[in-house]
Amino acid sequence: MPTPSPLKCFLDIPKNSDFPIQNLPFGAFKRPGDSEPHLGTAIGDWVLDLTILESSGLLLNSDFLFQGGTLNQFMAAGKLSWRAVRDRLQELLSASTPTLRDDSALQERILLPRAGVIMSLPASIGDYTDFYSSREHATNVGTMFRGKENALMPNWLHLPVGYHGRASSIVISGTDVRRPNGQLKPEEGAPVYGPSRLLDFELEMGFFIGPGNELGTPIPLRSAPDHIFGMVLVNDWSARDIQKWEYVPLGPFLGKSFATTISPWIVTMDALEPFRCTGPEQDPAPLPYLKGDCEASYDIKLEVGIRPAEASDVSIVSRSNFRYMYWTICQQLAHHTVNGCNMQPGDLLASGTISGSDPGSFGSMLELSWKGSKAVPLDHGEERKFIQDGDTVVLRGWCESEHFRIGFGEASGLVLPAI
Amino acid sequence: MPTPSPLKCFLDIPKNSDFPIQNLPFGAFKRPGDSEPHLGTAIGDWVLDLTILESSGLLLNSDFLFQGGTLNQFMAAGKLSWRAVRDRLQELLSASTPTLRDDSALQERILLPRAGVIMSLPASIGDYTDFYSSREHATNVGTMFRGKENALMPNWLHLPVGYHGRASSIVISGTDVRRPNGQLKPEEGAPVYGPSRLLDFELEMGFFIGPGNELGTPIPLRSAPDHIFGMVLVNDWSARDIQKWEYVPLGPFLGKSFATTISPWIVTMDALEPFRCTGPEQDPAPLPYLKGDCEASYDIKLEVGIRPAEASDVSIVSRSNFRYMYWTICQQLAHHTVNGCNMQPGDLLASGTISGSDPGSFGSMLELSWKGSKAVPLDHGEERKFIQDGDTVVLRGWCESEHFRIGFGEASGLVLPAI
Repeated sequence: MPTPSPLKCFLDIPKNSDFPIQNLPFGAFKRPGDSEPHLGTAIGDWVLDLTILESSGLLLNSDFLFQGGTLNQFMAAGKLSWRAVRDRLQELLSASTPTLRDDSALQERILLPRAGVIMSLPASIGDYTDFYSSREHATNVGTMFRGKENALMPNWLHLPVGYHGRASSIVISGTDVRRPNGQLKPEEGAPVYGPSRLLDFELEMGFFIGPGNELGTPIPLRSAPDHIFGMVLVNDWSARDIQKWEYVPLGPFLGKSFATTISPWIVTMDALEPFRCTGPEQDPAPLPYLKGDCEASYDIKLEVGIRPAEASDVSIVSRSNFRYMYWTICQQLAHHTVNGCNMQPGDLLASGTISGSDPGSFGSMLELSWKGSKAVPLDHGEERKFIQDGDTVVLRGWCESEHFRIGFGEASGLVLPAI
Repeated sequence: MPTPSPLKCFLDIPKNSDFPIQNLPFGAFKRPGDSEPHLGTAIGDWVLDLTILESSGLLLNSDFLFQGGTLNQFMAAGKLSWRAVRDRLQELLSASTPTLRDDSALQERILLPRAGVIMSLPASIGDYTDFYSSREHATNVGTMFRGKENALMPNWLHLPVGYHGRASSIVISGTDVRRPNGQLKPEEGAPVYGPSRLLDFELEMGFFIGPGNELGTPIPLRSAPDHIFGMVLVNDWSARDIQKWEYVPLGPFLGKSFATTISPWIVTMDALEPFRCTGPEQDPAPLPYLKGDCEASYDIKLEVGIRPAEASDVSIVSRSNFRYMYWTICQQLAHHTVNGCNMQPGDLLASGTISGSDPGSFGSMLELSWKGSKAVPLDHGEERKFIQDGDTVVLRGWCESEHFRIGFGEASGLVLPAI
């Protein structure tokens, strides 16, 4: 399918929009009053309704990929299908294609102001895995809890450490987050029950699985890209005090499973392709099953803002970049399946907290406040060591070139007091 | 609905059958050649097809609870609905009810020999959690790895330690299990890639969630029984060498996620009710949110057998009992949701390895062979330290009274060589 060049949309796309015609991320949304979500793509300040577009026969070979309210079918369809749809959407949205440009009745049916829709989870997420793949984050946490000499565990440089997370409590950006109650262990004496006092965010990104693999059949590193649909921002909310008491020896559990917030628009790997870059050097060299392409990271700028209850805007507390990750998403997927573990379309694999080497790039309050030992300044004289009730935490991410910006929108959540 | 007393089925039920009229467990099955499973109950050597029974209007008020191939709808319907269906099934199967007894055409349509059907997963399992709730197991493992003085972690007696497991790799009894490859760490030198050498079973039981809870709203201990649908046997296959190298600090991951085998028939809590009993005393007393009914365990006899490739029958290597569990299933559920984590119908929560105090009751080869330091004898002169390719591991469980036996059937899996 020919793609017009240079790509220009017939709609008026604000400069610096996260969603130019080069992006076309996929998501699920409801019109006010709808009971079932439709699927769509974001274009500038608009949403293009793919559920209706497909029913109208305008997606050509697309066959029930955008019905049913989640992207799982489309994810399962694979890379050729993703590209065909992307090409077709770029064609339909192009300033040089009359089909949609000149049909105001059609526009009325399938183009909605983005501000007027309610986003919902883009996929039915079967399993959620969270890695721990930023060397700086693992080193910071290790240093705080075990000292500088024992900061990184012996396995860390040999494999992408990860654990199974809770899928049911993954929520879409904009969902309020209730401060969890749980068991806390004071320095002295018996554990007590109460609200977490050390509520934290974790700045992460995650990728969605496209086609899965059969149980027992690993996905080799070289095939990993065929199984990766796209990426989102992830805030893996953490209750540090609950986590600290519960996590030995089986890992994080209730300190995490009360909420995980994701951004609503899944940015495809094709849209991210121009921003592929080299990640950190891996030394020692990984075992052969994890050794491959050296340009397998992405230059995605990230930032975290906190908006206190009374404030009108966020204070930025962290500026980071996805390229700081030590282990790549392809290595994570190859490792996750090396034992035969089966992936399914819609599974979510997250990076773990992304921290850079500069303290201003740390991806959690735990690190930014260095375990609560120093306050992190916000605008207007406020400060934080951990997250307070009424705070809204906002993650943002985007890639930037001279000509356009591929953005992720945001993953935000307002913290409500414990019940 | 009146239940005939004493309960007697019009079918000929073998003495010592796992599935008398007092049991009526629920499962999903296919006739040979079927593409979609039907739902059914096991009665003696038969399966009663509930999908057809419901369509025929014979389940009375049942409304699409047994269509769609999984029990999730029925699980969501709640306790009153479960009881109404159970009562109605006991009535229909009763020797004193003519409806089915005297209608051979109907029998032909809805009663199938159990040996002729293929069982499939009874539910779509959204999330799977594995606890670690046997004091003896935790003590054994702790003693092996940290010495007798530090065997139990400080949190263990205060909360049911657990972790998120992998839902996608849960398989039904009879599914072959492929020995996993992965990273292994020799005593000296760098890690290597290869097949696990320390493949193990874990004797566990699990319970399925009925109605769930909203994110942010815990299930209090007293309401827990309303959310528990029934129980199955669980073999949480474990690759000890993969696990040992990977699990610090985030817990078990690829050492577990290659396969988890469950028994196909979910035995309801109503069927288990006559076998409710007192579990171990809990000292120190749990925090108030975990403190409740002292008769909250179940007297379920358990055994593990290994059948080597050439053998005709299993050698029993462990005899245990579910009542040895320190933390009850209600406590597990109350704890799991105390932070607001949401459960969904069909979620599976497993007990963790069940070991008693007697070495013959240990629930894993790790414990039975004491970390491979002694061989476990099988029949005909064979012995094992861990599980070998070609071995079939069979878990069985049942409750026994003077008058009947409430059985779980079996959870079995044949181990195939690594690829």
